[in-house]
Amino acid sequence: MPQQAMGLQLRSTVKKEGILELSLTSVPIPEPKPDEVVVRVEASPINPSDLGLMLGGADLSTTKASGTADDTVVTASIPPAMMKSMAGRVDQSLPVGNEGAGVVVSAGSADQARALMGKTVAILGGAMYAQFRCIKASQCLVLPQGTTPAEGASCFVNPLTALGMVETMRLEGHSALVHTAAASNLGQMLNKLCLQDGIGLVNIVRKQEHADVLKAIGAKHVVNSGAATFMDDLKEALVATGATLAFDAIGGGKLASQILSCMEAAAARTASEYSRYGSTTHKQVYIYGGLDRGPTELNRNFGMSWGLGGWLLTAFLKKIGPEAAQKLRERVAREIKTTFASHYSKEVSLAEALRLDEIAIYGQVSTGQKYLINPNKGLG
Amino acid sequence: MPQQAMGLQLRSTVKKEGILELSLTSVPIPEPKPDEVVVRVEASPINPSDLGLMLGGADLSTTKASGTADDTVVTASIPPAMMKSMAGRVDQSLPVGNEGAGVVVSAGSADQARALMGKTVAILGGAMYAQFRCIKASQCLVLPQGTTPAEGASCFVNPLTALGMVETMRLEGHSALVHTAAASNLGQMLNKLCLQDGIGLVNIVRKQEHADVLKAIGAKHVVNSGAATFMDDLKEALVATGATLAFDAIGGGKLASQILSCMEAAAARTASEYSRYGSTTHKQVYIYGGLDRGPTELNRNFGMSWGLGGWLLTAFLKKIGPEAAQKLRERVAREIKTTFASHYSKEVSLAEALRLDEIAIYGQVSTGQKYLINPNKGLG
Repeated sequence: MPQQAMGLQLRSTVKKEGILELSLTSVPIPEPKPDEVVVRVEASPINPSDLGLMLGGADLSTTKASGTADDTVVTASIPPAMMKSMAGRVDQSLPVGNEGAGVVVSAGSADQARALMGKTVAILGGAMYAQFRCIKASQCLVLPQGTTPAEGASCFVNPLTALGMVETMRLEGHSALVHTAAASNLGQMLNKLCLQDGIGLVNIVRKQEHADVLKAIGAKHVVNSGAATFMDDLKEALVATGATLAFDAIGGGKLASQILSCMEAAAARTASEYSRYGSTTHKQVYIYGGLDRGPTELNRNFGMSWGLGGWLLTAFLKKIGPEAAQKLRERVAREIKTTFASHYSKEVSLAEALRLDEIAIYGQVSTGQKYLINPNKGLG
Repeated sequence: MPQQAMGLQLRSTVKKEGILELSLTSVPIPEPKPDEVVVRVEASPINPSDLGLMLGGADLSTTKASGTADDTVVTASIPPAMMKSMAGRVDQSLPVGNEGAGVVVSAGSADQARALMGKTVAILGGAMYAQFRCIKASQCLVLPQGTTPAEGASCFVNPLTALGMVETMRLEGHSALVHTAAASNLGQMLNKLCLQDGIGLVNIVRKQEHADVLKAIGAKHVVNSGAATFMDDLKEALVATGATLAFDAIGGGKLASQILSCMEAAAARTASEYSRYGSTTHKQVYIYGGLDRGPTELNRNFGMSWGLGGWLLTAFLKKIGPEAAQKLRERVAREIKTTFASHYSKEVSLAEALRLDEIAIYGQVSTGQKYLINPNKGLG
């Protein structure tokens, strides 16, 4: 029996003592079952949604490295308040990385699997910060000829989130959108998608430089929440677009409440009669991220027709069903170099992803700093 | 041409100077159109939902009376912060009183109208704090023989709200309920309804004496938000009932967030696998009142499957449509002396309703203090 081939995988562990531990582990490359393939992962983005699992809420000012350069172990302290929400994962060594792309290097005996041999595919399913990922053939999205793994690395999380926002808008009877933290990679993608599909979009950013980024790519409505005129600017943009649905990546603070208030003020402009319960226009904000982990504060000066809720891509895809979801994926593959193209500030290897200076940068989740991991970089 | 008959009506005006003015006005009794009837109103409750329109957010420590006993004008100051939400009603003399009951004293020529002559009916539609109310015959709910106007005065707001909560639970796929400010007239009614229909109900109250009131009428799950063990007690009651939907009359503060947190903790008990996005159980809180006018604070430690929103009876009835709404009304009429019976602490005339000592009591909206206005009391 030949020796089992091995591959490196990034692991994250939250220890019950309140310590995060990041390390690289050598794991066997599985033999694919008949309906499975093994993908050599060559590109996997570090999305904000990866960092929650990877960094476990740790205080990044406390990171320490030990071990050798190729076998580093990074540790950091997790504030006690964060540990409460970690109960379900304590002392488990978890693989990380939601999505990625690479080349199929071995395949099971089923036709659907064998047909993928040598193809460049995009995959979603966790454990992508690894040299190899064994996965069902049906979960592979074949990329168009001439697409590199780096170009196809972000086929799911951001593109499907952007498409999911637009589909949610349609399903719930709204006609235009508001988006916060709008200069993010996702925000720029949503902006391109809405321009392409002729959908009104109000982009809310926190800095003038982010407004400039969006205007440079053709955004029509950009409002800066840091400006003194924010509430008036937002109201005007809401009147202009008719947007009554917002997706909020911030979560904490007063922003969701401000959006609902401005939507209500925009609706009241067309109301003919006084009602102390406010307009009958339904106003909805979905929180899909938590860039501000603080509490959400609602002043409820927006009548009674409103909703606030969590929005999660996986729940949305489950709701629309596999056929509708597959159509969205196929659109992403077709437009991966245009509408759904992603940009990265840096490509790193698995070992480089554990360098403290790199963690300090990508751990900030700041607009314009997006990393791509190439798990096979520097490994021959 | 005979002199037109007149009737008294209570009016509320918010003056642009920030002053509330309450008065009685003499208005002509309209001739009913063919499909209308005129009801001599003999009983109309002061619901919390009436007080918003009637008192216009005024500071009740500033009430003053002028004029004679039978022709009193009451004034009070409205805090500047409240005036913002009054913009739509400034300087309009508005009638008040959502619902009531009385006897049909004249009818239009249509058969449906004439059939109601002399009948005791319950009506909804505003302007009920008046001796006479002209209304479409189709809006009258005929009360069963032997029902007095006082017994039928509260056929709509509380009974339909209680039924609306239960129907919303069914429509949105939940199987049990949570209710706050649960010892209120509405809360006691909801408790009777849930016992009758075999629905699990978690009653949240703020004082031990309110818990006692509910237990005395057979409530199974009562938790006191003032107790040190509140969060644990709530969690246990949620596990026992499986409630994932709450109706909250408080609005401000942390209660909605605490309910969602406890629902998530209850759901996590049965979860088999760690997910940092929390359970897939959808948890919903609807705010239908604002006993605490302060901001709502959400700490978002309840995963991503959650919703918070406003809930308004009129919007709910519109959503289910006229036929379904009529079925609910007919059930109320059938059970008006049992499930949907209301209790009042005092009956007052229109003139008595403007006495400062009475306003000081009913204006507090405290559990156990509910007034009934009889607009034809003391008028012969």
